[in-house]
Amino acid sequence: MSETKILLTDHEIPTSWYNIQADMPNIPKPPLNPATKEPVGPEDLSAIFPPELIKQEVTQERWIEIPDEIQEIYRLWRPAPLYRARRLEKALDTPARIYFKYEGVSPAGSHKLNTAVPQAYFNREGGINRLTTETGAGQWGVALSQACSFFDMECKVYMVKVSYEQKPYRRSMMKVFGSNVVSSPSEETAAGRDALERYPDSPGSLGIAISEAVEVAAGREDTNYALGSVLNHVLLHQTIIGQEAKLQMAKAGHYPDVVIACCGGGSNFGGMAFPFVHDKLVNGSKVRLVATEPSACPTLTKGAFGYDYGDTAGLTPLLSMYTLGAGFMPPGIHSGGLRYHGDSPLVSQLYKDQIIEARGLGQNAIFKSAIMFARSEGIVPAPESAHAICGAVQEAIAAKEAGESRNILFNLSGHGHMDLPSYDAYLAGGLEDLELTDDILEEARNSLPKI
Amino acid sequence: MSETKILLTDHEIPTSWYNIQADMPNIPKPPLNPATKEPVGPEDLSAIFPPELIKQEVTQERWIEIPDEIQEIYRLWRPAPLYRARRLEKALDTPARIYFKYEGVSPAGSHKLNTAVPQAYFNREGGINRLTTETGAGQWGVALSQACSFFDMECKVYMVKVSYEQKPYRRSMMKVFGSNVVSSPSEETAAGRDALERYPDSPGSLGIAISEAVEVAAGREDTNYALGSVLNHVLLHQTIIGQEAKLQMAKAGHYPDVVIACCGGGSNFGGMAFPFVHDKLVNGSKVRLVATEPSACPTLTKGAFGYDYGDTAGLTPLLSMYTLGAGFMPPGIHSGGLRYHGDSPLVSQLYKDQIIEARGLGQNAIFKSAIMFARSEGIVPAPESAHAICGAVQEAIAAKEAGESRNILFNLSGHGHMDLPSYDAYLAGGLEDLELTDDILEEARNSLPKI
Repeated sequence: MSETKILLTDHEIPTSWYNIQADMPNIPKPPLNPATKEPVGPEDLSAIFPPELIKQEVTQERWIEIPDEIQEIYRLWRPAPLYRARRLEKALDTPARIYFKYEGVSPAGSHKLNTAVPQAYFNREGGINRLTTETGAGQWGVALSQACSFFDMECKVYMVKVSYEQKPYRRSMMKVFGSNVVSSPSEETAAGRDALERYPDSPGSLGIAISEAVEVAAGREDTNYALGSVLNHVLLHQTIIGQEAKLQMAKAGHYPDVVIACCGGGSNFGGMAFPFVHDKLVNGSKVRLVATEPSACPTLTKGAFGYDYGDTAGLTPLLSMYTLGAGFMPPGIHSGGLRYHGDSPLVSQLYKDQIIEARGLGQNAIFKSAIMFARSEGIVPAPESAHAICGAVQEAIAAKEAGESRNILFNLSGHGHMDLPSYDAYLAGGLEDLELTDDILEEARNSLPKI
Repeated sequence: MSETKILLTDHEIPTSWYNIQADMPNIPKPPLNPATKEPVGPEDLSAIFPPELIKQEVTQERWIEIPDEIQEIYRLWRPAPLYRARRLEKALDTPARIYFKYEGVSPAGSHKLNTAVPQAYFNREGGINRLTTETGAGQWGVALSQACSFFDMECKVYMVKVSYEQKPYRRSMMKVFGSNVVSSPSEETAAGRDALERYPDSPGSLGIAISEAVEVAAGREDTNYALGSVLNHVLLHQTIIGQEAKLQMAKAGHYPDVVIACCGGGSNFGGMAFPFVHDKLVNGSKVRLVATEPSACPTLTKGAFGYDYGDTAGLTPLLSMYTLGAGFMPPGIHSGGLRYHGDSPLVSQLYKDQIIEARGLGQNAIFKSAIMFARSEGIVPAPESAHAICGAVQEAIAAKEAGESRNILFNLSGHGHMDLPSYDAYLAGGLEDLELTDDILEEARNSLPKI
């Protein structure tokens, strides 16, 4: 019998990130300055990002070399293992082969550390010793805290108040790594004070937390801002996932027929899928790429394509993307990492050009798949990652119904050790399934700013 | 530069467990029936253990073959990686090489799954489809729940009430795997009802929870009982850790000068150390084996050697071991897994025969090491495992002071994702350091039952 785990040695970690801009038939339209509506230039971004990341945001070079110091840190957990999910195949009685890449071996618990490390590194190289960021459920905040700790940098995290109170373990983990974590809205910034004045009992929002983090970064010479998804350079860093997976599938002797990853802001999906998109665009591969998203926040499957703001207050540049409208308030589903109203411009453009597919999934379906996966393969997945499992299970059942073998690959982006209360809620009798109607597309379309 | 991770393939997982009874100069004296004080026979144990485990408890064969079905499950996470802790070495500025074996990659989060799987398997082979057990902090309960889920068996866990309330995440994880978890003392057993009648607000204890689990197992034909440490067969299963580590150290090209593991009931220490003890006893190796334990529960370092009960109520067989007295109530330290009053008879005998060493460590020292480790290597360790880190740090500092290179190997038995409130308590200003006086040995000696 072939191996259950397909491992790579330290020497097989890819030494470059893959930049899909080199191969896309259509590059996304550039971000626009929210005030002038003119394309954003590097100088607009230099108040909060270091030069190297600004360069990575716009370059069309295919391969970007990974500096040695980043590779050294990557080796703490990378290459991440690829598993053949034999026990899940058996439980599904499917002729399909199911493989998954496991990013939960990262000490931060998810794929987020793949970009947190280079972002901290390039900021430090740019003379910055302090980063600010926002975090919702806390996966990104934990990752950036670890990365800053590795490079002896300070880290300030504005954590959405409701999560600050509901996810105490992630908050603690940031503190283990020396970060200063505050509940947002805070009294420390004008944006925070303004929010509190208008609504003293505000539970906070990502929009407000972004405003606080950006305000501090823009106002201090020694401080920059870091974002965990959406932007081109973030997706670039994550392509290490898909590159490793390709090597591992080659060792397993099976090229995937379909590659599946969950999609919120797009960095997890892009990281896994882009190296395979390369094969499709350049090498004529027939591989299918499927982004799975919550049916309660169906950005790709039911959103509008156009320019929209990255935040609720309209302070960030306008991005060309699929969006549910910057004012869209997603229901309080248990996959906090997939509740973003927009999507990465790169992923959005590929979806618009019909190079990738997307699928919306309900909460009960994803938790059902998560429990089945945990009981067969052992790992308790993050609810976000369970969207990928659910997509893979659907493909495996389809393969069985079609009576054909099929090679399915999905990305298990993180473990669910800090999401167990969500499992309690599911096991206590099911969750609300929030299937949004098609009217939402109309609303999103009408909400887009006029360019 | 050599590898940061030393990995083994699925085909390199050891195919036998190592039984140290084959090589010990003195085998521990046999357990005694608590009523008759006569040696316990297989028939005494058959009410709660299956034949194969009873055989493994007493056999002196050196190698016990691991059945294929268990190996298949082991492959879900084994072989566990061995890491060179280069960044920790650098932080300590030590000439020593520090290696660690990481058992936290187990989906249950600790080494406990190594024995939970064979215990479930051999019970099922013996016609049993239901297991009961007790758990304190929950590591063992989670592991046995997973193992039962893998073999489609029922699992009933009596969880000490105070932990049931304070460790909700571990309780949730057991439920994800389909276990029935109840707060102990419960109304379901005579032992539980008796405890509640005497003390309605009882916070519970491992002693009461063991009594509940054993009572149910002894009273039902289809049900057996499983224990997570102390007994010979449990330590036998854990030797897979040390066997893998030996292979990996050979690949790294360095045989350890010292091997360190934390020690509560002894299964983690035995699992890591026994394959190296074999080298010392049989091959003339000079390797030192160091068991680290809390100075607040100093069983080996300050306990008495003799026959004592395994539980507080005196219902279990008498074991020949180091003990602080079955009535000893350890302070409420943050390493719940190391609060047992006794120790494995195998580990105790080796310590008495001066083949292994032991060292007591305080809470503040172990958390200081844990934070240093997390910030250099990324992984947040369980407080129990931090006792091994602290021992390794001490060895690395000693190597520096002596100006000599030294190969240090320790076992990181589990991650601390569900122990973060303990880190909060430490970071909030230190913990109480509970150094017990030498009087405790006198008290322990006086408390031993007369044989």
